[in-house]
Amino acid sequence: MRTDIEIAQAATLQPIVPLAVRRLGVPEGSLSPYGRYKAKLSLEQIEKLQGRPDGHLVLVTAITPTPPGEGKTTTTVGLGDALNHIGQNAIICLREPSLGPCFGMKGGAAGGGLAQIVPMEDINLHFTGDFHAIALANNLLAALIDNHVHHGNALGLDVRRIVWRRVVDMNDRALREITVALGGPGNGYPREDGFDIVVASEVMAILCLATSLADLKERLGRIVVGYTSSKLPITARQLKADGAMAALLKDALAPNLVQTLEGNPAFVHGGPFANIAHGCNSLIATQTALKLADYVVTEAGFGADLGAEKFIDIKCRQSGLRPGCAVIVATVRALRHHGGALQGLEALQEGLANLRRHVANVRLHYGLPAIVSINRFDGDTPEEIAMIERECAALEVPCVLASHWAEGGAGAAELAREVVKACASGAARMQLLYEDELPLDEKIAAVARKIYHAESVDWEPKARAQLGELQALGFGGLPVCIAKTQYSFSSDAKLLAAPIGHALRVRELRLNAGAGFVTAICGDIMTMPGLPKVPAAERIDVDAHGRISGLF
Amino acid sequence: MRTDIEIAQAATLQPIVPLAVRRLGVPEGSLSPYGRYKAKLSLEQIEKLQGRPDGHLVLVTAITPTPPGEGKTTTTVGLGDALNHIGQNAIICLREPSLGPCFGMKGGAAGGGLAQIVPMEDINLHFTGDFHAIALANNLLAALIDNHVHHGNALGLDVRRIVWRRVVDMNDRALREITVALGGPGNGYPREDGFDIVVASEVMAILCLATSLADLKERLGRIVVGYTSSKLPITARQLKADGAMAALLKDALAPNLVQTLEGNPAFVHGGPFANIAHGCNSLIATQTALKLADYVVTEAGFGADLGAEKFIDIKCRQSGLRPGCAVIVATVRALRHHGGALQGLEALQEGLANLRRHVANVRLHYGLPAIVSINRFDGDTPEEIAMIERECAALEVPCVLASHWAEGGAGAAELAREVVKACASGAARMQLLYEDELPLDEKIAAVARKIYHAESVDWEPKARAQLGELQALGFGGLPVCIAKTQYSFSSDAKLLAAPIGHALRVRELRLNAGAGFVTAICGDIMTMPGLPKVPAAERIDVDAHGRISGLF
Repeated sequence: MRTDIEIAQAATLQPIVPLAVRRLGVPEGSLSPYGRYKAKLSLEQIEKLQGRPDGHLVLVTAITPTPPGEGKTTTTVGLGDALNHIGQNAIICLREPSLGPCFGMKGGAAGGGLAQIVPMEDINLHFTGDFHAIALANNLLAALIDNHVHHGNALGLDVRRIVWRRVVDMNDRALREITVALGGPGNGYPREDGFDIVVASEVMAILCLATSLADLKERLGRIVVGYTSSKLPITARQLKADGAMAALLKDALAPNLVQTLEGNPAFVHGGPFANIAHGCNSLIATQTALKLADYVVTEAGFGADLGAEKFIDIKCRQSGLRPGCAVIVATVRALRHHGGALQGLEALQEGLANLRRHVANVRLHYGLPAIVSINRFDGDTPEEIAMIERECAALEVPCVLASHWAEGGAGAAELAREVVKACASGAARMQLLYEDELPLDEKIAAVARKIYHAESVDWEPKARAQLGELQALGFGGLPVCIAKTQYSFSSDAKLLAAPIGHALRVRELRLNAGAGFVTAICGDIMTMPGLPKVPAAERIDVDAHGRISGLF
Repeated sequence: MRTDIEIAQAATLQPIVPLAVRRLGVPEGSLSPYGRYKAKLSLEQIEKLQGRPDGHLVLVTAITPTPPGEGKTTTTVGLGDALNHIGQNAIICLREPSLGPCFGMKGGAAGGGLAQIVPMEDINLHFTGDFHAIALANNLLAALIDNHVHHGNALGLDVRRIVWRRVVDMNDRALREITVALGGPGNGYPREDGFDIVVASEVMAILCLATSLADLKERLGRIVVGYTSSKLPITARQLKADGAMAALLKDALAPNLVQTLEGNPAFVHGGPFANIAHGCNSLIATQTALKLADYVVTEAGFGADLGAEKFIDIKCRQSGLRPGCAVIVATVRALRHHGGALQGLEALQEGLANLRRHVANVRLHYGLPAIVSINRFDGDTPEEIAMIERECAALEVPCVLASHWAEGGAGAAELAREVVKACASGAARMQLLYEDELPLDEKIAAVARKIYHAESVDWEPKARAQLGELQALGFGGLPVCIAKTQYSFSSDAKLLAAPIGHALRVRELRLNAGAGFVTAICGDIMTMPGLPKVPAAERIDVDAHGRISGLF
């Protein structure tokens, strides 16, 4: 069987500029090529599209995932191809993969099998340099902070209260906790610091929520980098960092266009971490795609409790986006896992509780028509498939078997038809989970109660103190971004299926004043991953002709 | 008067792909566009050029510089334009500027006035992402080192003897000396570490000396990252890092093509630090340009004692390149500075000793015909110019007054004609300063004696010990890369003009086994600059239409 990279390398790609001109109807001059198969669409052209009506937005989400993942990206690509296959005009919107994890364990994030976006090596490595620009904008701000303190600290930053960390696009555990500015007066004031992976940077979240270059700069200026000794916030604007940061990001803000293996257009742009941040591709890409196509298929990180909730309560709240339906990806394997066993119909029956709750949440709390898509694997038995189908019939939710991985867009044609039906029905009544006016703790409680079915929210003392401070500073009106394990509805990764009676434990609040949300950290959150004992980097290679191997 | 960025932004650029097809005669398919005005020439196409004869190589070097710089890059661009202006076919080869210093004090490195390469904002900011790729390859190796130690340290690396540092393209003094891997067993083994600016990375030097992707990978594998407790070297190859590093660099190795304000082709590729490394643009760009043009104009960092010496003893030694002549850039202002005063003919007369020594070195020790080019400034008086011209006449060295800054290529037409004459004369007999077989200390002594006119070389005990170790490990056959102040022939920045009787103090040796040289650190060398009290970043901005201001 061919690997993903072998399939991708064997594909014949179309030059992206003529493809975009033909399929999106944008002028050639509005496209900036990066090599032959990647391009950015100009912000100028995007402004010109403003008057147009929007297409239908389709959100691909999933049941509570297991470590190998349930194929959300693959389904997003397959569904996009399928919509085009059945004669609709569809664009896919995905996140850009983070380079760091490529060298660790994780595969790429460009789909799989016959449902991939290409050129996959480029997309998984440097792509168009957006993440590099984000990393530098982040690190410029960090350098300006320490430089400000070094040269007299006119703003009175408390070096113990600097919250802005540096970033690198690499899994590098040695950088999680460091001390900087050692070596004497010439090197500044020593302090504790640390690096995050670039997808955890607030600059990434900002780029993904900004509506224009002006909005981007405005948001960058609002970043709170630290506090004075009397706990007053100091912003990037006070450090005069916003202009230079925006200058570094001006090209990165323009969305990237690539193609699927079937030659359909895909915007791949931005990639905020799905735990610490909101986990969706850029708003500017999604909004642009909606102006250019009848259907836009996008995904949100992790299961519907995390990804879809943030998609709605952060991205849709800030932008006014309104999805027409949600596809919930499930696999037989993962449902058995939630039922507590690797094999057997009984385990599957137990595990269906997880699917049931996600379907109910999507319909009841998010107000969206749901479609269950079973991402087919070779080992799935007819009895297992039938059991899921019966469950869905009982729930009165459409359920389709999708085999885009093996068959490409044709394998997801039925899913595409259900999506068209759901969008055409006009049944979507998207709801936000809570009002802006609610204090932060009540917002968190609303998500915990409605979506996680938690019995209570437990606040650790540190988080409780931060809550009071953030409310007092006037940040209580922001939405919350809950960072918790993706492996359970609860904050305990071991509670599978559909746990009840649990408590959500809030350890820490982190202000993202520029991105416009407050992250509530519930459980252990890794903002800098590590490499495994035998990192993928050891097998990655390039031959004398530039052909990459071992990437996946 | 218009600033450099205003001139650059007002220019009408030609689309780079048709320009390259027309001017270089390469097929369109061999060019990978990055936006409309930047492109990379494929390594495949470069291989196809191998059989062709080489054009003439012209090295632009300078007298001992003063802090504002003497206009070496500007002269390189102006001379390239001038050669084309007088009907020759010329290509310029320059280094890529480092992004970090843009936010500090330094202007860009894209020339100035009417002698610039464009698009200047792109070239000075992210350009085609080469430096980002280099930074990540460097940092991947760093992550693999700490990861190896964390997971059992099978190779027995001594954490006190890890010499590989991390890099970032930012002036960030707080990262010069840090401790990493704090926070407990999950984060690895604590140790002292530090960041350099990306241009100081050995990966940068390697990329700039590699002849092919295979050679690049081979060199990456040879990098010595540290030593065991018995002082045996551990290489990147032993960590299996070379393949993944090369994969990250495969696009970066292809040279970048841009244009001058006059629409002439320029390769801008690679940018190793001129103190810690050899300070020339990539070998692959220079070699490719020689296949595509009759004249290739390139520069080497700092004055002729540093830049030209390394250009010859490292780049030419490793590659077989042979320049046809050298242009020595001088300014009236700098020569007065060497004479010890800001004004007056007496100071100029004194300062001419500096020019005299550089001319002698270039002709006698490097074996190249020299041409003195006076980079004209508005305040220069006719008497001052006449004094330099008289001096040059006495030395029997051609001397021309060049005003490309104000007039573009036409302003350097006489310089171009002198260059053509010198190359056509066939007088060049390029010599290496020392043989490979000489031990490292004798190589350093040869440079110190012949070029710097030093009386002796003083070895600090640490450097002396390193000398013994490197010789014993078999690295004695490498050329040396002397890192010292650029402001004097000596290692003391205050000794101006043409000092004699001084001692070169060697503080430390650093092995660059992959790049293929040993750096001898003489005096204080900064591998990570800092930002000034009011960094340029504070005035850099971008408007709502993406127009950058304040960059210079």
